[in-house]
Amino acid sequence: MDILTLRVELLTPEAFAPFGDVIAPRESEANHAVNAGTAVRFHALGTVDVVGDDARALISIFRAQPRALPFDVIMLERHPLGSQAFVPMDPRQRYIVVVAESPESQPRAFLAANGQGVNYRRGCWHHPLIALDRESDFLVVDRGGTGVNCEEVSLSVRCRIEGV
Amino acid sequence: MDILTLRVELLTPEAFAPFGDVIAPRESEANHAVNAGTAVRFHALGTVDVVGDDARALISIFRAQPRALPFDVIMLERHPLGSQAFVPMDPRQRYIVVVAESPESQPRAFLAANGQGVNYRRGCWHHPLIALDRESDFLVVDRGGTGVNCEEVSLSVRCRIEGV
Repeated sequence: MDILTLRVELLTPEAFAPFGDVIAPRESEANHAVNAGTAVRFHALGTVDVVGDDARALISIFRAQPRALPFDVIMLERHPLGSQAFVPMDPRQRYIVVVAESPESQPRAFLAANGQGVNYRRGCWHHPLIALDRESDFLVVDRGGTGVNCEEVSLSVRCRIEGV
Repeated sequence: MDILTLRVELLTPEAFAPFGDVIAPRESEANHAVNAGTAVRFHALGTVDVVGDDARALISIFRAQPRALPFDVIMLERHPLGSQAFVPMDPRQRYIVVVAESPESQPRAFLAANGQGVNYRRGCWHHPLIALDRESDFLVVDRGGTGVNCEEVSLSVRCRIEGV
């Protein structure tokens, strides 16, 4: 099997836009003061998109084991019925996000750091969470409800993340 | 005006149940392994409950200034159209949660620590976030959409939190 090396990119809202939202404070006209001026609301950094008659958004926690580098990406998954957000519960936690426009296109790898979260758009092909360094907890906002909400595909090319 | 001192209670799922969910890992039959056994999903710790024709769940961040103790609670608010979750983005962040069954009943104060989040049930009377110690960021999951989703009430008794 061929091996393709994936360069790890900086995670920015612009670079990640085809795949979903980056959840991190940023300047926006939608931001506003709340709680009598004692807090700022960085508004609508991600929208939860769940479909199906009995669909609901759930808040869960993933406790992830760290993965070692180099790491080979050999599969992707997607959730056709709902968006899925991951936000580290400790800002020191780094992790790698792998996404692709389709199973045939070359995946892209991003390094999330400094508390950045991601919200995969509904149907976005992605690799399961690649946590680094240590066992770590992530807040997850995704879909509950009946229906088949996970598809997996094997990649025809092994994609290697050498390091960050 | 009379002053009532609020004792600050330990935040546990059982104590908080009348008001909503505590978002923190805990044993449950609903938990399960994911990502080829490299992660555990602490499943459905909170359910997002948004109502209205154009209602959607939003992911935002609140950046809160710390409040000094003693702190006087003189008002409460509620969101009749949606639940509202707060999860600290740093597990070292402590904050006080004040809730009440009604504007006439005595409020209760809870200390959230060690990364605990809360999800106020739709319509739960609560005080805006009382962050302690330092400026801090909280992940917020609540409702977007048209309609009036905030009601405020002044309390007839001043409720003082002396310390934690």
